[in-house]
Amino acid sequence: MASTAAAPRDWTRRRTAKRERLEAVRPFASGRVLDAGRMRDALQALLRPGDRVALEGDNQKQADFLAEALAGCDPNVVHDLHLLISSISLREHLDVFERGVARRLDFAYAGPQSVRVAQMLADDKIEVGAIHTYVELYARMFVDLTPDVALLCAEQADHEGNLYTGPNTEDTPTIAEAAAFRDGVVLAQVNELVDRVPRVDIPGDWVDLVVESPRPFVLEPLFTRDPRQIGQVEILMAMLALRGIYERHGVTALNHGIGFDTAAIELILPTYGEELGLRGKICRHWTLNPHPTLIPAIESGWVESVHCFGGEPGTERYVAARPDVFFIGGDGSLRSNRVLCQLAGQYAVDMFIGSSLQIDACANSSTVTEGRLSGFGGAPNMGHDPHGRRHASPAWLSLLGGEAPALRGRKLVVQITQTFRSGGTPAFVESLDAIQVGKDAGMPIPPIMIYGDDVSHVVTEEGVAYLYRAGSLAERREAVAAVAGATPVGRDLDERRVEELRRDGLVALPEDLKVDVRRADRSLLAARSIEDLIAWSGGLYDPPAQFRTW
Amino acid sequence: MASTAAAPRDWTRRRTAKRERLEAVRPFASGRVLDAGRMRDALQALLRPGDRVALEGDNQKQADFLAEALAGCDPNVVHDLHLLISSISLREHLDVFERGVARRLDFAYAGPQSVRVAQMLADDKIEVGAIHTYVELYARMFVDLTPDVALLCAEQADHEGNLYTGPNTEDTPTIAEAAAFRDGVVLAQVNELVDRVPRVDIPGDWVDLVVESPRPFVLEPLFTRDPRQIGQVEILMAMLALRGIYERHGVTALNHGIGFDTAAIELILPTYGEELGLRGKICRHWTLNPHPTLIPAIESGWVESVHCFGGEPGTERYVAARPDVFFIGGDGSLRSNRVLCQLAGQYAVDMFIGSSLQIDACANSSTVTEGRLSGFGGAPNMGHDPHGRRHASPAWLSLLGGEAPALRGRKLVVQITQTFRSGGTPAFVESLDAIQVGKDAGMPIPPIMIYGDDVSHVVTEEGVAYLYRAGSLAERREAVAAVAGATPVGRDLDERRVEELRRDGLVALPEDLKVDVRRADRSLLAARSIEDLIAWSGGLYDPPAQFRTW
Repeated sequence: MASTAAAPRDWTRRRTAKRERLEAVRPFASGRVLDAGRMRDALQALLRPGDRVALEGDNQKQADFLAEALAGCDPNVVHDLHLLISSISLREHLDVFERGVARRLDFAYAGPQSVRVAQMLADDKIEVGAIHTYVELYARMFVDLTPDVALLCAEQADHEGNLYTGPNTEDTPTIAEAAAFRDGVVLAQVNELVDRVPRVDIPGDWVDLVVESPRPFVLEPLFTRDPRQIGQVEILMAMLALRGIYERHGVTALNHGIGFDTAAIELILPTYGEELGLRGKICRHWTLNPHPTLIPAIESGWVESVHCFGGEPGTERYVAARPDVFFIGGDGSLRSNRVLCQLAGQYAVDMFIGSSLQIDACANSSTVTEGRLSGFGGAPNMGHDPHGRRHASPAWLSLLGGEAPALRGRKLVVQITQTFRSGGTPAFVESLDAIQVGKDAGMPIPPIMIYGDDVSHVVTEEGVAYLYRAGSLAERREAVAAVAGATPVGRDLDERRVEELRRDGLVALPEDLKVDVRRADRSLLAARSIEDLIAWSGGLYDPPAQFRTW
Repeated sequence: MASTAAAPRDWTRRRTAKRERLEAVRPFASGRVLDAGRMRDALQALLRPGDRVALEGDNQKQADFLAEALAGCDPNVVHDLHLLISSISLREHLDVFERGVARRLDFAYAGPQSVRVAQMLADDKIEVGAIHTYVELYARMFVDLTPDVALLCAEQADHEGNLYTGPNTEDTPTIAEAAAFRDGVVLAQVNELVDRVPRVDIPGDWVDLVVESPRPFVLEPLFTRDPRQIGQVEILMAMLALRGIYERHGVTALNHGIGFDTAAIELILPTYGEELGLRGKICRHWTLNPHPTLIPAIESGWVESVHCFGGEPGTERYVAARPDVFFIGGDGSLRSNRVLCQLAGQYAVDMFIGSSLQIDACANSSTVTEGRLSGFGGAPNMGHDPHGRRHASPAWLSLLGGEAPALRGRKLVVQITQTFRSGGTPAFVESLDAIQVGKDAGMPIPPIMIYGDDVSHVVTEEGVAYLYRAGSLAERREAVAAVAGATPVGRDLDERRVEELRRDGLVALPEDLKVDVRRADRSLLAARSIEDLIAWSGGLYDPPAQFRTW
C-alpha cells in the first residue's frame, strides 16, 4: 500500500466545539431549558465569531424572539457571523448586519425587506454568498453550508426537547436534521413549554436547547386572497386556463402559486368547472398551502388530496376537520413539510401555474422589480421541467417532445398575467427589471425567476399561448406576442401571423376555446367574499383580523 | 354566495378505516407490539383487498420478514393489493404477485429480480403502474399514491414505537411520514425491541405497530468495490477525468455513482491528485453512500463532508470514528436520508459522474439491457441539469449557456465507460437495448436512464468529450464518436474531424490533457486491495464476508 496517510488527526473537532458551547450556556439553562430573560447572554455564550448560523426565517413562521436577541448581541463579543435565512422578513434580520454581529448572508427570499437588502448590499454592509430557492439553501446545509448553530421555531416543546410544530412544520425538521447530525447546536424558541407535546414533529434527541418565548412567533398569512378583489379579467383568464389547459391536457395533479389569478381558478371550479363536467377529471391532487379560496372546491368534492409546504393562519380548524383531504397528525392538526412538498411538486405533479409581475418577449419572467432584490423563494423549483422524472402521466405525455429515441413528456409550467398591471404598467416588457437589479447587485447571472424555455404556456386575457409547440425561439416569441395585447411586446405582431399561429395550435383565443367572454363575471365565483368562504367552510375557517371587514 | 355545496359528507373515512384495522389486529398484539409468530394472521387482519401497501424495499435494506409474511397470506383473504416497492430485491416481492395477493405494482428498481419482472409482465401476472426513480415514487406517496399501510424496517424499536435505524435510515422516515399523516397504518419490523432506543430516527407517535423479526433484516453491500479488480483502463480514465473535468472545472461538491470507474477516481486522489496539487481545491464535499474506496482520500485530508443516501455494511465503525466528515447522531452512528441526499445532489452539488452500460450515438444511456427491466433507481435524479437551481458556483458557471438574458450555468453530468465492456461487447451502440425492452414492456416512452442532452461530458480511455460545448445535435454526435473508439459509433469518424473537434475544445485526448498514458498503472492506486482499505482505516473498516479473500 502507498503509505501517504497524513499525521494522526483529530476527527471530532465539531463534537468538541459543541460540548464546549453547551458548557458555556449552562449558567443560563436549567437542563435543556434556557432562561428567556437571559437570552442575549445565552447567545453570546453559545456563539463564536465567524459561526455559520441558520436562523428560521421560513416562508411564513419566524423565530422572531431569537432574531431579536441576536440583533441585540454585543458586536465585540459576537461578530462576523455567516447567516443562513431562507426568508428575510423581519427588521431584526438586517439589524444583525447593521450592528456588525453578522457579515455574510445566504438567503432565498426577501419580501418586505427587499429594498433594504438591495440598499445594504450597495453600501457594502452585507456580503452575500448567494441567493437561492428555499430548497437549494436547505440542500447546501447538507453539503457546504452546514450550520454550527440552528435557531428554530416551534409551537411547543417538552423538557426532553421534543418539538411540536402544529400546522406550520414548514422547514423546521430539515434545518434541525442538518445541524443535529453534524454536531451543530439546535436551539428552538417555542410558544409554550409543556409536559407532553401532542405529537412529536422533531425528536428531542435532535434538540439541545429550548426557550419559551415571551410571545407567540410571528406567522404571515401569505396565501389568503380576498375574493372581493377578483374582477372580470381574472375570471376570464381563469376560464381560458380551465378550458385551454386544465381540460385540454387533463391535469389531475398540480400546484398553484400565490395570487388572485390562480385564486380565481380555484373559485370557478365549483361553478364553471362543474358545468363543463370536469369534476373528478381534473384538479384531484394538490401540492400547496391551505389556500382559503380552495375551500369551495374541497367542499364540492373536487379535491382528493392536498399536501402542504406550510400552513395558513385561520385555516387550522377547517383543515383539521378534513383529514381525508389534508395530511393530519395523531393530534388532529396539519403536518406540513416544505422539502417533501417541493419533492412532490417537482416529481409527482403535472403542472405549476403562477402569476408573474414581468415577462419578456422570450417568456422569461421575474418578480424582481426595480430596486427590490426579492430573491427566488420556491417558484423556480415548481416552475421548471424536472428532467429527473421518469414516470409518465397523460398530462405529461401530452407535451411529448424530443428526438427519438430520447422522447419524453414535460411538466406544464404556466405563467398567467394580465397584459397590463394596475396603473397601466405593462406586464410584457422588452427587458426585465431583474436584469438591471442583478447587475447592480453584482450577481453573476441575471436573477430570472422562471426561464422562458421552461415555460410551456402563457395565459392572458387575450388567450393562451402554447409555447411548448414552438419549434424555434422566434416562434416562441411570436406566440408570446400574440397574447401580449397592446404592450410593447405584443403591439407589433402582424394580424395574419396571429391567424397562422391559431391555425397551427400555438395560440388559442377565447373563441377557439369556446369561452364566452360575456360570462366572465363575478357571478361565476363560488365565493365572492371572505364571509362566503367562512360559510362554505361551515364556520370552520377563521380569517385573520386583517381580512375581516365586518 | 352560490350555494352549490354538496350534501354533508364524511371527511374521516381514512381515520375510521385505520381505527378498524387496528382493532382487527388487536388479538395479535400486546400494545404496539405484534406477535412475530402470528405475522401472517396479523397481516390478514390488517389488510383489505385493493389496499395500497408500501413495502420497504429500499436500495439496500429490506423489510424481508414482512415481505415473507405478505407472500404467505391467503389470496382468498388478501388479494389485489397495489404494492409500492422502491427496490424489488427479494424473491418474495414477486411471489406476492405469483400467488395473487397483489396485482398492481409501482416501483423504481429491480436489480437481481429484473429478468423475472420482465417475464411476469409478459405473462400478465403484474400490472405495472409506472417505473420511477426512488424519489419520484416517494413524491407520489404525498400526492396520488399515499399508502394505506406501510411495512417498514428498522434496527430497534421501543415500546412507544420510537424507531432507531442506525446508519441505514435511507427511506424509512419519508415513507413513514407519507403514511402516518394520512391515516395509513405504519408497521415496522425491527431487529430488536429495547427499552430505550439510542436515538429517535422516527418518532413513536408516527408508528402504530412494531414486530421483532426472528432475524436481522437483509442489507446489501451495494457500494463496495474491491480495488483488486481495478485495472489500467479504469485508472487511465480516472486520470483523464481528474485532469479534464475535476481540475479544469474546479469541482468541489459532487456525487459519484456506483462502479469501478468512479472507485478508481476515488483511489487516485491521494496519489495522482496529490501530485497535481489538487487537495483542498477539488472534491471537498460529497453526497454518496460511504464508499470504502473513499477511505484513503478521507484519511489523506481531501474530504470535508459526506452526506449519505444510505449506509454501507462494514463501514459502521469507520464512519462513526469520523464525525467531522459524516453526519452522525448523538448515538455515535451515521444518519443517512435518501430524500435529503437527493435534494443535496440535485441542488447543492456541481457534478454527477457515473458509469453506464450502454451509450448511443447521441449520448443517451441506459443500464437496462436485453431482457432485464431494471428500472431507474436514483441515477436520473443525479444525472440531469436541475433547472430549478439559481445559485452560482465556479464549476456551474464554467458551463454557462443560454441566450441572453436567459443565461445560466449547468450541472456537470458525466458518463464514464470503456469503449468495450468485458467480452468485447461495445458500450457505444447505435440503438440502446432499452428501446426494445421498453417496447416489449409496453412502456409509453423508452426507459432511458440519462438523456443525451443532459450529459455534459463523456469519458472513455480514448479521451474526454465536452458535449456541453456542442452547438448542435450533429456536433454532439461527432464528439461522442471521437471518444467511442472502434465501436460502431466511433469507427467511421474522420480523423481530420477529430482534429477540428480537439482544436475547438469539444474533445481532449490524453496528450491534450497532459496525461501520461504510461503512468496508468495499479501503482497509482492508493489502495490495491480490501486489506489496504482496512489498513488505511486503521482497522476500523470491517468488510463483509464476501469481500474477504483471506
